[in-house]
Amino acid sequence: MKIVVIGGGTGTYTALIGLKKYPCELTAVVSMMDSGGSTGVLRDEFGVLPPGDIRRGIVALSESTPIMKELFQYRFLTGSGLKGHSFGNLLITALKEITGSDAEAIKQACKILNIKGKVLPVTVDNSNLCAELENDYVIKGETKIDIPKHDPELKIKRIFLEPQAKAFEEAVEEILNADKIVIGPGDLYTSVLPNIIVEGIKEAIVNSKAKKIYVCNVMTKYGETNNFDVEDFVDEVEKYLGKGVLDLVVFNDKKASRRLLKKYKEENAQQVGFSLEKLKNKNVNFIKADLITEPNLIRHDPDKLAKVIFES
Amino acid sequence: MKIVVIGGGTGTYTALIGLKKYPCELTAVVSMMDSGGSTGVLRDEFGVLPPGDIRRGIVALSESTPIMKELFQYRFLTGSGLKGHSFGNLLITALKEITGSDAEAIKQACKILNIKGKVLPVTVDNSNLCAELENDYVIKGETKIDIPKHDPELKIKRIFLEPQAKAFEEAVEEILNADKIVIGPGDLYTSVLPNIIVEGIKEAIVNSKAKKIYVCNVMTKYGETNNFDVEDFVDEVEKYLGKGVLDLVVFNDKKASRRLLKKYKEENAQQVGFSLEKLKNKNVNFIKADLITEPNLIRHDPDKLAKVIFES
Repeated sequence: MKIVVIGGGTGTYTALIGLKKYPCELTAVVSMMDSGGSTGVLRDEFGVLPPGDIRRGIVALSESTPIMKELFQYRFLTGSGLKGHSFGNLLITALKEITGSDAEAIKQACKILNIKGKVLPVTVDNSNLCAELENDYVIKGETKIDIPKHDPELKIKRIFLEPQAKAFEEAVEEILNADKIVIGPGDLYTSVLPNIIVEGIKEAIVNSKAKKIYVCNVMTKYGETNNFDVEDFVDEVEKYLGKGVLDLVVFNDKKASRRLLKKYKEENAQQVGFSLEKLKNKNVNFIKADLITEPNLIRHDPDKLAKVIFES
Repeated sequence: MKIVVIGGGTGTYTALIGLKKYPCELTAVVSMMDSGGSTGVLRDEFGVLPPGDIRRGIVALSESTPIMKELFQYRFLTGSGLKGHSFGNLLITALKEITGSDAEAIKQACKILNIKGKVLPVTVDNSNLCAELENDYVIKGETKIDIPKHDPELKIKRIFLEPQAKAFEEAVEEILNADKIVIGPGDLYTSVLPNIIVEGIKEAIVNSKAKKIYVCNVMTKYGETNNFDVEDFVDEVEKYLGKGVLDLVVFNDKKASRRLLKKYKEENAQQVGFSLEKLKNKNVNFIKADLITEPNLIRHDPDKLAKVIFES
């Protein structure tokens, strides 16, 4: 079975970590709009495409030794010029300089980390993610949306790319040939939707024979999805993907612990609720299940999530 | 056959590249006194042992893909914090931070680059190379000796370590168990002798049952070995190693091209000469042969050098 996971960030990492234990061909198609931290500096100074999400995807699918994976994720904590840089980002940057191509650099990094499956950039065009707020103000750059410097109470009206970016051909092919497409979990406006708005991706998803599964987040994110319920997430995804495209929505129905919810509340985040009635009124199938793990954070459990996706 | 090559820098790289084609177990024992460039910055800021010579040894013995070797040798040409850093040095530094140990970091780097043989630091103690000139002035730091900021006409009277460093145990074992020990080629005072003055190395060489071969440089180096003939090189090595320890001296007798010698003369370097009479008066065997290659520089040819060493 060919499964394509579309997203970026921790959510996609979790889905990949879980799914890699199943007999399937896995491809991660990840967002290329990151503009902050180590990635932002390398993007500015080397013109390399943002390697952060690629890096996480590669680590998730790597069959390399634990130390090799640790090295790839290692972030320099000190050093005048190195502090904050992730070693994996430097590796991808150096490979870009050597090979002269972002796509080739990513391919070589996948080889070096001996990955099982594929990690593909959604685009190799240099583009910025922009968000238009409900007051018409436009934020430019993924980091500024992700860590809101704007008034976080204002809703995001729409997101777009500037300039528009075209889909990476191999990503389109994998989507078209997939048996299942998993969208999310991940930050809605900064990890998940930035893939769908790349020219050619929506069309590929629509035209694919695959079963299209949307995995909803377990927690809201302040400045992005304040007070969102599952229905709101689905509405937003359908706004960009089109109604009737999703075959299945998967979401968590296990209540998180009070202790942790209290901690999240300090950051104005809450557990994503749902109304079965509203969901039934939508033209979409859904599976609700206990999908979470919570040692220190409330997150999707890789194994629980993968089981539902694989068996659905 | 077990062959241990002792040195650092380009000369050792050349010897390893040549010898790896022969059926032998190769170990490189390399100097850890480098204090300049990328290495110097990492040494200051991370307390990592100077990785430069280790890196070259690893590349020489790596059985990895060409792009992996290129990556390991890649030097960032731009970037506010990265310019000048060698990727391989960053890799070793990150591994030091992860494993907490210089020796373990080097071992892991050898694994990642899939080397055939061993590359060992001569010491894992943090120490500085010092040179006392004939006017009693003491230069501290390998780089300052290597690229002379002092009066290059002044002879180096002696070199020493400050503080004294102890030999890396595994390097001692390899020397003791070797069938052949190859000392040099390489910069005499900054690559070759800095190994021999590490506490325990001279004793290991003396006590080893191995055949001890000194490979003399083909060119003099301004500020280090002005006007040195083969006999002078041998005298200096014997001064630190003891008389009668060397079993064989190997040197080049092919005259380099006038065109290149003229270029070298501009940097006050000349071809190393020799006097057969003087050499015969020494208690040492020698082999002279055409050992050089000269596309752009006058250097030892890896294949010619390895053949003489292996068959001697």
